[in-house]
Amino acid sequence: MITGKNYIGNLLSAKGNKTFTTFNPELNSKNTAVFTEATSAEIDEAVKLASEAFKKFNKITGSKKAAFLNTIADEILALDDLLIQIYCSETGLPEGRAKGERGRTIGQLRNFANLVAEGSWVEATIDTEDLTRASQPKPDIRKYNFPLGPVVVFGASNFPLAYSTAGGDTASALAAGCPVIVKSHPMHAGTGELVASAIKKAAEKTKMPNGVFSNLNSSGIEVGQKLVLNAGVKAVGFTGSIKGGRALYDLAANREEPIPVFAEMGSINPVILLPNALINRAKNIANIYAGSITLGTGQFCTNPGLILGIKSEGLTTFINTLSKEIVKINPSVMLHSNIKKGYVKNKEKVVSQEGVTVSANYSEYVQTNYAQQAVVTVDGKYFLENATLHLEVFGPFSMIVECENKKQLEKIITNLEGQLTGTIIADNNELENHANIVNALQNRVGRIIFNGVPTGVEVCESMVHGGPYPASTDSRFTAVGIGSIKRWVRPFSYQDWPNNLLPNELKNENPLGILRTINGEKSRAKIN
Amino acid sequence: MITGKNYIGNLLSAKGNKTFTTFNPELNSKNTAVFTEATSAEIDEAVKLASEAFKKFNKITGSKKAAFLNTIADEILALDDLLIQIYCSETGLPEGRAKGERGRTIGQLRNFANLVAEGSWVEATIDTEDLTRASQPKPDIRKYNFPLGPVVVFGASNFPLAYSTAGGDTASALAAGCPVIVKSHPMHAGTGELVASAIKKAAEKTKMPNGVFSNLNSSGIEVGQKLVLNAGVKAVGFTGSIKGGRALYDLAANREEPIPVFAEMGSINPVILLPNALINRAKNIANIYAGSITLGTGQFCTNPGLILGIKSEGLTTFINTLSKEIVKINPSVMLHSNIKKGYVKNKEKVVSQEGVTVSANYSEYVQTNYAQQAVVTVDGKYFLENATLHLEVFGPFSMIVECENKKQLEKIITNLEGQLTGTIIADNNELENHANIVNALQNRVGRIIFNGVPTGVEVCESMVHGGPYPASTDSRFTAVGIGSIKRWVRPFSYQDWPNNLLPNELKNENPLGILRTINGEKSRAKIN
Repeated sequence: MITGKNYIGNLLSAKGNKTFTTFNPELNSKNTAVFTEATSAEIDEAVKLASEAFKKFNKITGSKKAAFLNTIADEILALDDLLIQIYCSETGLPEGRAKGERGRTIGQLRNFANLVAEGSWVEATIDTEDLTRASQPKPDIRKYNFPLGPVVVFGASNFPLAYSTAGGDTASALAAGCPVIVKSHPMHAGTGELVASAIKKAAEKTKMPNGVFSNLNSSGIEVGQKLVLNAGVKAVGFTGSIKGGRALYDLAANREEPIPVFAEMGSINPVILLPNALINRAKNIANIYAGSITLGTGQFCTNPGLILGIKSEGLTTFINTLSKEIVKINPSVMLHSNIKKGYVKNKEKVVSQEGVTVSANYSEYVQTNYAQQAVVTVDGKYFLENATLHLEVFGPFSMIVECENKKQLEKIITNLEGQLTGTIIADNNELENHANIVNALQNRVGRIIFNGVPTGVEVCESMVHGGPYPASTDSRFTAVGIGSIKRWVRPFSYQDWPNNLLPNELKNENPLGILRTINGEKSRAKIN
Repeated sequence: MITGKNYIGNLLSAKGNKTFTTFNPELNSKNTAVFTEATSAEIDEAVKLASEAFKKFNKITGSKKAAFLNTIADEILALDDLLIQIYCSETGLPEGRAKGERGRTIGQLRNFANLVAEGSWVEATIDTEDLTRASQPKPDIRKYNFPLGPVVVFGASNFPLAYSTAGGDTASALAAGCPVIVKSHPMHAGTGELVASAIKKAAEKTKMPNGVFSNLNSSGIEVGQKLVLNAGVKAVGFTGSIKGGRALYDLAANREEPIPVFAEMGSINPVILLPNALINRAKNIANIYAGSITLGTGQFCTNPGLILGIKSEGLTTFINTLSKEIVKINPSVMLHSNIKKGYVKNKEKVVSQEGVTVSANYSEYVQTNYAQQAVVTVDGKYFLENATLHLEVFGPFSMIVECENKKQLEKIITNLEGQLTGTIIADNNELENHANIVNALQNRVGRIIFNGVPTGVEVCESMVHGGPYPASTDSRFTAVGIGSIKRWVRPFSYQDWPNNLLPNELKNENPLGILRTINGEKSRAKIN
């Protein structure tokens, strides 16, 4: 049952009078549950509880945190069909996607549970004392990663599970030892409340301090702004638009105490088609990209929105094939009527720019909120001169830039805004002859892909999901993979601290058996 | 010979007409060398050269970077007495300190040389493909740390060598693969130029790309501002005042492309005296602290500016002894007449606040620019209410806060601004009974010290020199130790990339023999 209330710690609360509903884009109608936006007092209470909870949560053992995370996963699974049904009703996404995303969310929670249960992630580093050193006695210093404090997580419109309430940001922050306050995404507030109820149950079952998690409803931007400006909040995780992410970054940077904001924002994910690949398999590549561009109605942050090639017969074949194939694909529904409206508006804006030619546009009748996929082309010189053409058109859309030559291609890549991904399609030995292109692309992206598609972000330790601004607000971190925990911790040193009062990770005995760096050497050994 | 010119890459340049000199505080007179401030054109040229140099420097081998860093160290040593003489004439610091700081600077350069020569610091992480995975084929993904791009380093007034031209920020950024542009500190521009000449020689000897290093003179704030706002600059390192660091942080955060600023700023380094320690050894502690407060004329960022204790006979004994002992120490000269003026002004400001009592103030005659050490006391209630009392008085000064009880002490600690260090002086088993105090202190500092003094920052891997704002602008990094390289790198992933075109760190053969994480396991093995 969806109550429409906020979770302020473990308590349901709805003190405000501003309400809203979610929307079923498939039915083009409002859903019935009514959600109450969190009030200023509820926001303050959630942060106060989180700050209190932090005093205990920052020191609980890795095995207890693991139990909490695994129980969250269990409780999400226990929501069973209800979760899938609400998810689909709030997003228009199909059941298969809902279940797949649930699996990914569960997997992420269990990955972080394993990480903190094992314990070496704290990067324990010990330099033992040397009282006889010639210059002066050398102290004993021991460092480990310590959580920052309460983290605010903003749910993403396009990933109601994996990047929202119990998604990667929440899982990594809880694993780090940071209480989490979720600003639930208004488009899937019901999904958010259900997942929040699972987290609340898990927190109670595993005896976590009250306030370790809260879930706040909001229909506009005020709740999020108040959260980011609250002095008790110590970091922010966000997935969404450049405009939204930058606004939060600016708010946080202008606080009396600035705090880190990791915002994963827009990206048009350039794909470079090298000449020989086009000569040998233009049609095949076009077929694959017709699928990638329209996957999930083009609503992935790694959607290939920009395709670059040098003018040639092969490129023309690619354009013609892609244009022919992409309109054969059945249109699908977008997440929300507002997202559909944004898609139409941004597509029109790009199409109206000088030099842009519409190469494919699904023109048959579609239901309300369904997206008509499109491909446009433009000459390199126009793209270089007009930043509007670099705009992300969120949806099943891609722009093909026809470059005059290798030099212009390199210049376009060099001048691109920061991106999550860059892809190069090349034939055998072709990559070697395009080192400048590869180097230029490396400087603009977080992940580079060879002969594949950017859609599909594998959840693994080696993944970088982030990149130079505006792909993210801080390219030094990733939003996916266990390394994403580093966003929420700081190194902390003990100097000459009594062994029995050190955290277990740093004690001589190494009671957790973790991998540590002792006087420069990696080891699981005890210190005598 | 000091030319007074800027190094724009490997070329000496002085196109501007704004000049300045440095100052000998011991003689209270200007030094003779005349420095020319960098012009806008010179700034742009330095950044342009750095951006060009980055294209090569970001991919050169660790062993070549190590040779460069080691040669810088050699060339600094080759400056011999001239460097020591200029250093002393620009700072008033004694020869012993100059040589000690040179040793530390050399040591840091060689540490980073060893780090990059070995190579495992890139945190290579590899997940191999699994084309038979049930859900969908798993791609091959390989991640390593890649440099951000040109870094601007601001020299610090109080560490002309170790935190300036070739100091920790420069050494770590070069080690990371980032070209460096130093905004030389105007108080020791001659020392800066000499060190810059050593770096330039080393760059030429080891065939580094021109632009890998530049050194710009400036007497005011404009050169630094222009550097931070230049689109080619990708990160900033700063050591200095809260006002200066925050101004740079704000500039960088408001750029179209925000960039990371690591500023290590002010700190008053609270020292907590627990009751039993005071009962048993108040006089001994006071003697040690008289030395720590006046060390280097109190001009260390870890100077103990705040001492907290609970009202007791022991605390009174401590105050009386410290007051008696500190005035026995011979006053010493400050770095610059402006720093002396700032010290006098800030001391007067604090002394004039309600509830503040001067307990010791060196009142005998001192030479111009020498600092008269002082100790003041104040009741806990005044300290809690008046943020002016939290002001850093840069110099040989400390404030003792007399708390009513344990609860007030804890409240004061909880409400402190972020600090580089916190120290607890306690007797056997006393720490166990003050867990709340320890926890509160841990939340406010980067390093916690038991029964010692905060002055003296050991250069080692386990050191954290940083902390919650305003000790630094980002508590997730340290300015000291090899971990400080992480400020200048971002993770970067290759997906399905041809093995022969991967960087050596990520190739199957592991030609560098570095420690990597392969499918979750640490290993130096090859991949078959």
